[in-house]
Amino acid sequence: MKLKDIQNQKDNRKIEINKAGVKSIRYPIVVLDRKNREQHTVATINMYVGLPHHFKGTHMSRFIEVLNKHRKGISTRNISEILVKMKEKLNSESAHIEIEFPFFIEKETPVSKSKSLMEYRCHMWGSHDEKSDLVVGVEVPVTTLCPCSREISNYGAHNQRSIVKVKVRFKKFFWIEDLIKLVEKSASSEIYPLLKRPDEKFVTEMAYDNPVFVEDVVRNIAQQLDKDSNITWYTVESENQESIHNHSAYAYIKKKG
Amino acid sequence: MKLKDIQNQKDNRKIEINKAGVKSIRYPIVVLDRKNREQHTVATINMYVGLPHHFKGTHMSRFIEVLNKHRKGISTRNISEILVKMKEKLNSESAHIEIEFPFFIEKETPVSKSKSLMEYRCHMWGSHDEKSDLVVGVEVPVTTLCPCSREISNYGAHNQRSIVKVKVRFKKFFWIEDLIKLVEKSASSEIYPLLKRPDEKFVTEMAYDNPVFVEDVVRNIAQQLDKDSNITWYTVESENQESIHNHSAYAYIKKKG
Amino acid sequence: MKLKDIQNQKDNRKIEINKAGVKSIRYPIVVLDRKNREQHTVATINMYVGLPHHFKGTHMSRFIEVLNKHRKGISTRNISEILVKMKEKLNSESAHIEIEFPFFIEKETPVSKSKSLMEYRCHMWGSHDEKSDLVVGVEVPVTTLCPCSREISNYGAHNQRSIVKVKVRFKKFFWIEDLIKLVEKSASSEIYPLLKRPDEKFVTEMAYDNPVFVEDVVRNIAQQLDKDSNITWYTVESENQESIHNHSAYAYIKKKG
Amino acid sequence: MKLKDIQNQKDNRKIEINKAGVKSIRYPIVVLDRKNREQHTVATINMYVGLPHHFKGTHMSRFIEVLNKHRKGISTRNISEILVKMKEKLNSESAHIEIEFPFFIEKETPVSKSKSLMEYRCHMWGSHDEKSDLVVGVEVPVTTLCPCSREISNYGAHNQRSIVKVKVRFKKFFWIEDLIKLVEKSASSEIYPLLKRPDEKFVTEMAYDNPVFVEDVVRNIAQQLDKDSNITWYTVESENQESIHNHSAYAYIKKKG
Repeated sequence: MKLKDIQNQKDNRKIEINKAGVKSIRYPIVVLDRKNREQHTVATINMYVGLPHHFKGTHMSRFIEVLNKHRKGISTRNISEILVKMKEKLNSESAHIEIEFPFFIEKETPVSKSKSLMEYRCHMWGSHDEKSDLVVGVEVPVTTLCPCSREISNYGAHNQRSIVKVKVRFKKFFWIEDLIKLVEKSASSEIYPLLKRPDEKFVTEMAYDNPVFVEDVVRNIAQQLDKDSNITWYTVESENQESIHNHSAYAYIKKKG
Repeated sequence: MKLKDIQNQKDNRKIEINKAGVKSIRYPIVVLDRKNREQHTVATINMYVGLPHHFKGTHMSRFIEVLNKHRKGISTRNISEILVKMKEKLNSESAHIEIEFPFFIEKETPVSKSKSLMEYRCHMWGSHDEKSDLVVGVEVPVTTLCPCSREISNYGAHNQRSIVKVKVRFKKFFWIEDLIKLVEKSASSEIYPLLKRPDEKFVTEMAYDNPVFVEDVVRNIAQQLDKDSNITWYTVESENQESIHNHSAYAYIKKKG
Repeated sequence: MKLKDIQNQKDNRKIEINKAGVKSIRYPIVVLDRKNREQHTVATINMYVGLPHHFKGTHMSRFIEVLNKHRKGISTRNISEILVKMKEKLNSESAHIEIEFPFFIEKETPVSKSKSLMEYRCHMWGSHDEKSDLVVGVEVPVTTLCPCSREISNYGAHNQRSIVKVKVRFKKFFWIEDLIKLVEKSASSEIYPLLKRPDEKFVTEMAYDNPVFVEDVVRNIAQQLDKDSNITWYTVESENQESIHNHSAYAYIKKKG
Repeated sequence: MKLKDIQNQKDNRKIEINKAGVKSIRYPIVVLDRKNREQHTVATINMYVGLPHHFKGTHMSRFIEVLNKHRKGISTRNISEILVKMKEKLNSESAHIEIEFPFFIEKETPVSKSKSLMEYRCHMWGSHDEKSDLVVGVEVPVTTLCPCSREISNYGAHNQRSIVKVKVRFKKFFWIEDLIKLVEKSASSEIYPLLKRPDEKFVTEMAYDNPVFVEDVVRNIAQQLDKDSNITWYTVESENQESIHNHSAYAYIKKKG
């Protein structure tokens, strides 16, 4: 028995759909890792294609078939290839993929040289449309210590965990490990999953010696990215989970052009 | 004793900040309600201003002062006034406000005429920059029943809860109640917090009689919005929480221009 | 036409169900407020009854009918009455209700006497079973400053936002405002939505003067609750969102008996 | 220079702390997989010890040291060993560990035999106290189709995604793959990440042929678990994300004793 292909039927509303596909797929993938060559992780993935006005629906199962083929090696190097496959399989002029995953880097503490694994959230947004596009993002937790609080108080200064998000467009391959390091150097102090007492002393004093407003964090990062000729576009945002409020302080810079 | 104003100090990095302010403030507000004149709700609010390159920081406490003044009557009618106050108080050329809140409408079921309150998430995004801008959004849960599943199966058809999000720009004031109704009419069936058995029969058959793909939902809505001369721009997206998968089917339309 | 009542049919598996009902209902409710008599808020509610082994199903719509009747005045004073109505309407020997809602208290800052509204999450868990039970909970954000970091560092000390959760059983009515105040006094400093510079100096120094481990916070609170003869049972937990890590420090005390 | 050990100081409040430690650590771990021997995943982990009344604080960094040692092979077989290490390292009489992780199983569709990877959330809760305890949990998404809706409607029946959570205590090692399969067989139909049209027809009709209330799902599972002599205790709960409501239908059974 041949089952009718409803999705393939004509649609008469003359409305093109920008993105049709599958959202919030959870899938195990393997990504590039500078130190260990590859890293196993679990991604949350969205895959869409453009749907011309004359087609009624998309064949959703084909997205998972493409994902199955490529899941064992996903990187900025082959996102474009995956998008081409999506366009072929789904018979579309445009394709979009969004991949988010936790990425772990082994960190060594500054004094005791203790090692542990620190999580960073990473993103890739790829598109093949009239033109092709790729944006890479990282989320980096850091410490920020308030310059105002330090200045006006006789002792102490409020500080907190801040989540910095950076998105970039770029010319040639780079390691996300380097982008993460750049962000960590722009805050009051970087943070660690494991700190022994001498390390705790070090990061406490380091933060006090480097007070930054949320505005400073994003400016410090923007300044570094402006200097890097490989980065053609960026946004930088920081959300400081204020220890003296129950809301966040926030700053955002978007590179022009 | 005069405390030093660190935020007001000069900054030499020559980097302008697009948005600096407070994020994820939770605040009780009062909004407009067509039937009951006003409705008490609890909002999540972001407030930002642009920060010129020569200033070091923003005075975060002033945002809350503005909010305190206006919280008892927030609507699309006075967002612009709030933005002007933010620019004045923060001494900035641009201001942005983002407000999200649950909004309740009393619904009556189709057969038993039972009444209950249904929650919709609403958003307002206002900006005063070189130009002023206001976008209103609603999130509407509905039922969708799959046309393919209905066609190919001897009986039954998979259906699910879908979350439809619509954002619009517009010429003159409109009631969000009307935008919500438009969305509910575009799905297989609207949904209710309370259904008696005759109502359940009604919505079950209604959904089976009106099968829609995720692509159909967004097209139906786009078609209606295209006809409404008050709507100058929109995006429509639907996320169908598929009963036969553990991920969502998704479609998105953005009006050109 | 009479529609068949499937839920009312016999079940032969001989398995009693502890809780059957509706979960994650969002509903606007009115709660008690010491200063303003009442407060409008938006709750997330679960309502269950026990289902004897011989019944196939529960009549879910009846829960919402009970909720409709009582939503305009919910407090620890009438939870019991609501539970009795649930048992009657659903024809059951046991009933359970869980209500969670944001609650706002106007706070005045310590120096500038500025006013703003601060959110606390509140809970009520009520049960009518063989015996009746009522637990009230509050979630209170505070500042904690690390005694170890202060002691070992030449200057500064890491500090962070902490979320303290307290649940209590009690003899007679009390105001949650008092329980919240007790928690705030047990941390390094309480926090505020709005702080002017003199206030920021005050809370920074206050926190430095009152360093507490996560273990100290829960012990301080337990000690106070032990002294209160109205409190018959409690749990206290604190989750410190460490500014030097990307995970939380945690402590939990449960009163024996 | 010797840094003072504040945590080791005496505490005079005479209040024992049930659990003190680290919460929400994200860490890459390797778990057992029946088909592939092992599976890489990313866990969220809590680790606590009991703190006697005379100690001021816990040494939080030691938890991560224990985790580092064991992360490459975590299973129900060695949780006890990890707990013993925690007690030793932290010098405590009691230890608790909570591990949650996504687990993927390759599924084959019923008709087209297409393969894809399906995610299940798994949990382990281990305790060494006066006695030792281990609870294993799985979260399994399934389809449920409403018997009432099917019975009273002339055609169709509302159905939805349901999340079933089962926790068990047990005598000897078992594969979570088997517990997951047991849950999937107790619903209207199991679900798949990828379905071709003949598969979609199959699961649609399968669900219509096997209507279950939320109460039926938990009873079906309880009945199976009661028959399994390896299972000494369980809780079963199902949350049906109703397609006709914006809240869930819920049922919960806890084995006595």
